[in-house]
Amino acid sequence: MKKLIGIDLGGTTVKFAILTEEGEVQQKWSIETDIQNDGKYIIPNIIKSINHRLELYGLSSDDFLGIGMGSPGNVDVIKGTVIGAYNLNWHELQHVKEQIEEGTRVPFFMDNDANVAALGEQWKGAGEGSNNVVFVTLGTGVGGGIVAEGNLIHGLGAAGEIGHINVDPTGYECTCGNVGCLETVASAKGVVQLARDISEKYAGDSILKVMIDDGQEVTAKVIFDQARFEDPLAEIVVEKFYFYLGLACSNIANVLHPDTIVIGGGVSAAGEMLIHGVTRYFKKYAFPQIKESTKIKLAELGNDAGVIGAASLVVNNF
Amino acid sequence: MKKLIGIDLGGTTVKFAILTEEGEVQQKWSIETDIQNDGKYIIPNIIKSINHRLELYGLSSDDFLGIGMGSPGNVDVIKGTVIGAYNLNWHELQHVKEQIEEGTRVPFFMDNDANVAALGEQWKGAGEGSNNVVFVTLGTGVGGGIVAEGNLIHGLGAAGEIGHINVDPTGYECTCGNVGCLETVASAKGVVQLARDISEKYAGDSILKVMIDDGQEVTAKVIFDQARFEDPLAEIVVEKFYFYLGLACSNIANVLHPDTIVIGGGVSAAGEMLIHGVTRYFKKYAFPQIKESTKIKLAELGNDAGVIGAASLVVNNF
Repeated sequence: MKKLIGIDLGGTTVKFAILTEEGEVQQKWSIETDIQNDGKYIIPNIIKSINHRLELYGLSSDDFLGIGMGSPGNVDVIKGTVIGAYNLNWHELQHVKEQIEEGTRVPFFMDNDANVAALGEQWKGAGEGSNNVVFVTLGTGVGGGIVAEGNLIHGLGAAGEIGHINVDPTGYECTCGNVGCLETVASAKGVVQLARDISEKYAGDSILKVMIDDGQEVTAKVIFDQARFEDPLAEIVVEKFYFYLGLACSNIANVLHPDTIVIGGGVSAAGEMLIHGVTRYFKKYAFPQIKESTKIKLAELGNDAGVIGAASLVVNNF
Repeated sequence: MKKLIGIDLGGTTVKFAILTEEGEVQQKWSIETDIQNDGKYIIPNIIKSINHRLELYGLSSDDFLGIGMGSPGNVDVIKGTVIGAYNLNWHELQHVKEQIEEGTRVPFFMDNDANVAALGEQWKGAGEGSNNVVFVTLGTGVGGGIVAEGNLIHGLGAAGEIGHINVDPTGYECTCGNVGCLETVASAKGVVQLARDISEKYAGDSILKVMIDDGQEVTAKVIFDQARFEDPLAEIVVEKFYFYLGLACSNIANVLHPDTIVIGGGVSAAGEMLIHGVTRYFKKYAFPQIKESTKIKLAELGNDAGVIGAASLVVNNF
């Protein structure tokens, strides 16, 4: 029985795991991401760290079926290259697969970070056991990954741009240049934008309004906490958030009829309250046969989704 | 080199074709669909017609790789059964695969009619050469089929319910029980509904308004023709139609990033004018990388999409 290595490459840390072929995590470690000098140390540091760990555990390249990695930026899955990963200072094309295979003598596979997280949740998380899973991550931005009929969907390369589904043609401007994208109301920043906007026109009593008018730091967490305490303004804001995210989920499901839509990322820390709210609008807008079968669930793997999903790239390619 | 048989089973006719493995149509014929007595003659008639034709052409079951069929209703692709095809009077479960394989001695494959038409356009029509194609059919209703990474997407069974993508949460009631589905504004009936509704509030000069107020028969064709003649009310109506369909296409593309979105069905007879109008709104609401690469095109196969796509089911299963 061979082992797998999963790598989650991020702008501040690189996470590693050694897993069994069944996806059981046996070892975990991480290193800092050194983005100096156009990120030229990143890949050498990854190679060094893997070789060091294998030595430490008395393992050799022959013990591994392969290495999988999730990376930010535009990943060419076939060539194993990355370009435009700005949080890594990778402005030029990086020949990642070539370098890592040469440095470790283990076959290497790569995909973008959102796709890899989707694979993780589909393999071992909230979507386990299903071939049709959509992963939506509500973080700084809103991203996503799609597994349909057991395959990760790339399309022409940018499939899964769930944050740019339009939920309000008269809505807020988005960084992408369009108007009314889901990201403008459902990312960590988007929820706050929604709160500030609604607060301006809100006249009643509200702790949230006082905080906003007072210039205190208002985050998505503060807003969901206030809604939990039944602050009337916060309740209006999260209701609007549920509507937008529920509408987007129903439109995704009307196209793909997935078994599960998994919601992850920082904003999803609001927990089951969020799932209930979103599901209410999902059931309003999804096609009858679909609303009865597609489930909306919280992500289960947290930070491990990346390394687990990355490792599954290896299994899927053999 | 073996041959294929493609069957397009509809409520009024059953269309047949014999094709090469490359999808070239060599023979076509059709029979009436006899829906009497709960549609019990439909399958025996199909078997009789195939066996008769093979005799006529001096062919035997050994000359064929398989038979593929597109059917209305809920198709169980694995079991080869159909239920709930109301325009065939098939209320009870039909063991289609079992009967046809027994009657013809040729392997049989089946999918629903919208999926099969999508496969046809992907194999030999407007999406030829691409593994990522979305087919949208604007007819009595609005249906669709999705090919992603070369696979027809079924999800839990109802994937491709494109007619029930929500394009207006405050819109018209839909037969499905929801509100604001694409079908309520983009099907043949939907466009007319849109025209009647806008006409009520419209005060200016318009031949279309006179026709509506006069009780003349107004169809989607009449509306698009009047828009072509620059009737001001008709122009407002088709502009709204372009907006809704363009919005739905951009949301589909933001999820799947297909190479091509193919528009077919009766309403698409409006032709290149329709494609231009829809593309304008698609470019407004799709993610930048996606709007630059995904193309919106008219369907090319017309009535042949069904038999060609049905035949491709055979090839895809070998």
